[in-house]
Amino acid sequence: DVEGLDATILTGPDVLKHSGHEDTFSDPLVDCKSCKSRWKADQLDNQSCPNCKSKDLTDPRPFNLMFKTSIGPVDDGSSFAYLRPETAQQIFTNFKNVLDSTNRTLPFGIAQIGKAFRNEITPRNFIFRVREFEQMELEFFVEPGSDGEWHKYWVDSRYNWWIDQGIDKKRLELCEIEKDELSHYSKATVDIMYSFPHGKEELEGIANRTDFDLGSHTKNQEDFNISSKVMKNKKSTTKLAVQNIFNKNWFIPYVIEPSAGVERGVLALLNEAYKEEKIDGKNSRIVLALKPHLCPIKAAVIPLKRNNEQLVNQAKVIKKSLQKLGLGRVMLENSGNIGKNYRRHDEIGTPLCITVDFETLENKSVTVRDRDTMQQKRLSPDELKDYYEKYFQ
Amino acid sequence: DVEGLDATILTGPDVLKHSGHEDTFSDPLVDCKSCKSRWKADQLDNQSCPNCKSKDLTDPRPFNLMFKTSIGPVDDGSSFAYLRPETAQQIFTNFKNVLDSTNRTLPFGIAQIGKAFRNEITPRNFIFRVREFEQMELEFFVEPGSDGEWHKYWVDSRYNWWIDQGIDKKRLELCEIEKDELSHYSKATVDIMYSFPHGKEELEGIANRTDFDLGSHTKNQEDFNISSKVMKNKKSTTKLAVQNIFNKNWFIPYVIEPSAGVERGVLALLNEAYKEEKIDGKNSRIVLALKPHLCPIKAAVIPLKRNNEQLVNQAKVIKKSLQKLGLGRVMLENSGNIGKNYRRHDEIGTPLCITVDFETLENKSVTVRDRDTMQQKRLSPDELKDYYEKYFQ
Repeated sequence: DVEGLDATILTGPDVLKHSGHEDTFSDPLVDCKSCKSRWKADQLDNQSCPNCKSKDLTDPRPFNLMFKTSIGPVDDGSSFAYLRPETAQQIFTNFKNVLDSTNRTLPFGIAQIGKAFRNEITPRNFIFRVREFEQMELEFFVEPGSDGEWHKYWVDSRYNWWIDQGIDKKRLELCEIEKDELSHYSKATVDIMYSFPHGKEELEGIANRTDFDLGSHTKNQEDFNISSKVMKNKKSTTKLAVQNIFNKNWFIPYVIEPSAGVERGVLALLNEAYKEEKIDGKNSRIVLALKPHLCPIKAAVIPLKRNNEQLVNQAKVIKKSLQKLGLGRVMLENSGNIGKNYRRHDEIGTPLCITVDFETLENKSVTVRDRDTMQQKRLSPDELKDYYEKYFQ
Repeated sequence: DVEGLDATILTGPDVLKHSGHEDTFSDPLVDCKSCKSRWKADQLDNQSCPNCKSKDLTDPRPFNLMFKTSIGPVDDGSSFAYLRPETAQQIFTNFKNVLDSTNRTLPFGIAQIGKAFRNEITPRNFIFRVREFEQMELEFFVEPGSDGEWHKYWVDSRYNWWIDQGIDKKRLELCEIEKDELSHYSKATVDIMYSFPHGKEELEGIANRTDFDLGSHTKNQEDFNISSKVMKNKKSTTKLAVQNIFNKNWFIPYVIEPSAGVERGVLALLNEAYKEEKIDGKNSRIVLALKPHLCPIKAAVIPLKRNNEQLVNQAKVIKKSLQKLGLGRVMLENSGNIGKNYRRHDEIGTPLCITVDFETLENKSVTVRDRDTMQQKRLSPDELKDYYEKYFQ
């Protein structure tokens, strides 16, 4: 019961004012009057400049973390837009469009994956503080009163989703945010934390945002019994409420929001999948043991001899037939050295290597080698199709 | 032989300087000194202000069509980025990354679909001049000398692709751009034009960009025999050339680029698919006759009586089993009035409506109704699966 959305990146300032971003997405900055360097207030020890040690500093001033760009021909600051700092807000402002065109009743969700932008002053920490990143967010709209139950549902469901992708339970932890550390919009938030080699980081947060969002963006706010504190919105032109079909009352839905960064999720999955294995006592190999549904290349078809026309043609036929099954990318690997090809595909996580040799030319059978067990078996074309479909389903 | 890429939107100014965008993506603007309005130079008739008719105008000054945003804490213009004005440039600057990590030899392509941004002074013409839009571009890298042949290949291939999506040949036209109207980078360009109801517009352009792009972004330009005129690039750190394995010479590949706007393509397809049909002499219906692979909803499963628990449960079972086939979205339509549901799904282009009635409860058979022919047939569960898979393959 979830619809997809792909909304704009350029976002009107009114939207980000009522979402609370204009107020909360700012860091206090301090200038050193002596050496003209600029610092985040929380980077200063002892109220002295980390560069020249001068104590001649300005008072902290707010700095907006959102990227701004001016729109239209006149660059006088009167007409500008922000690059969206998250994918969520367009879901709220498009709520009524989606509701009307998809004929939904509560509970239902709207999800979006896409770019978000934050003008971090000090990008660092590998992929954990970057200026352009990919977010995946789901806003699940429910009736007030059922929000506690749905919050629990989504925490469980998202926790299990990460495990299904290949994250080890041992390195996952649910962390309930303390009441006094909750964001301004949240009634309850549970973070899914992952133990990276360098320390614990958040993979995803699941927040109970109450009626804060739709309440902030709706028109005629005074007509509703809004529970979360919002500023007055006189600019909204759309009523972001739904009607109870029994008592005919209009109400603002509550929102449960699972929100995750794509990059850190991928990093966690790579961390889980990466292995260095000893084989035969002396040799070793690198394996990226991703789950089959996540492997970028599903199978490599390898002719035993490089550029041997008959073998290569036969490999192309097999590649094409497997590709046609629609289960993911199949690659022709025409570089001859079977052992090296196996290692290369172990390393990028290709689960199956299919070798075409001279016996194949006689009876069409091939050797299939499994990434994880390194076991090989000889399969007829029918057996191959069966084996392949079962492997990826 | 095409790799996918998803690169950044924030783009360093150096990239867009060497691509030629900083020079060519500007419109001359004129200010009216009298009423302070601002105009594109080509909007002025008789050198007078369209607003107040004054002739007291400034000389035309260049205005950059690219959106700019400042990066980092200091907003003094020293550190800024452009929002990419097209998806192509990151493909060129990432050429060597892709080449090295995918082990490709020429010819091969890199494709990207994504947002692009242009600060249009006067957005208008429905979706034809917008500030944020979706582009799909393929850069196909070939050996110099084979570029003419590959250009022809891609023109044919893209023309046929549009027909496969459902565009009528009658409304398509190939238009070869005259030599003196070619872009600065192009040796030959063919536009695929489509006759919209309001007039002819470009759906896609296929350009032979020669070695202009990789030549512009590469380091050590003087080592190569570059044919397209480029400015000197002393900032590049990467050699964007490939080696001929026989004579060991390094050369800059030529690029064939099919480039299309997603929105206008979708509009053309909607225009082709939309029909108002008379039925039975007096009634009429609206049909969106999209090709099956493009329909957003593949099938609606409809219980004959709204909220009848047995019928709804049976419908859910059928919905789930069809959804599981992985052929696209299946929807449960639980609003009771079969006739209205058929019309609604005709209008949004759902090709199959599957009705669950009391006979279904006895023998599991259902009625399948075809959007285009409006014919209905009764099918057993096995027949349904077969019919459904054949329809969408």
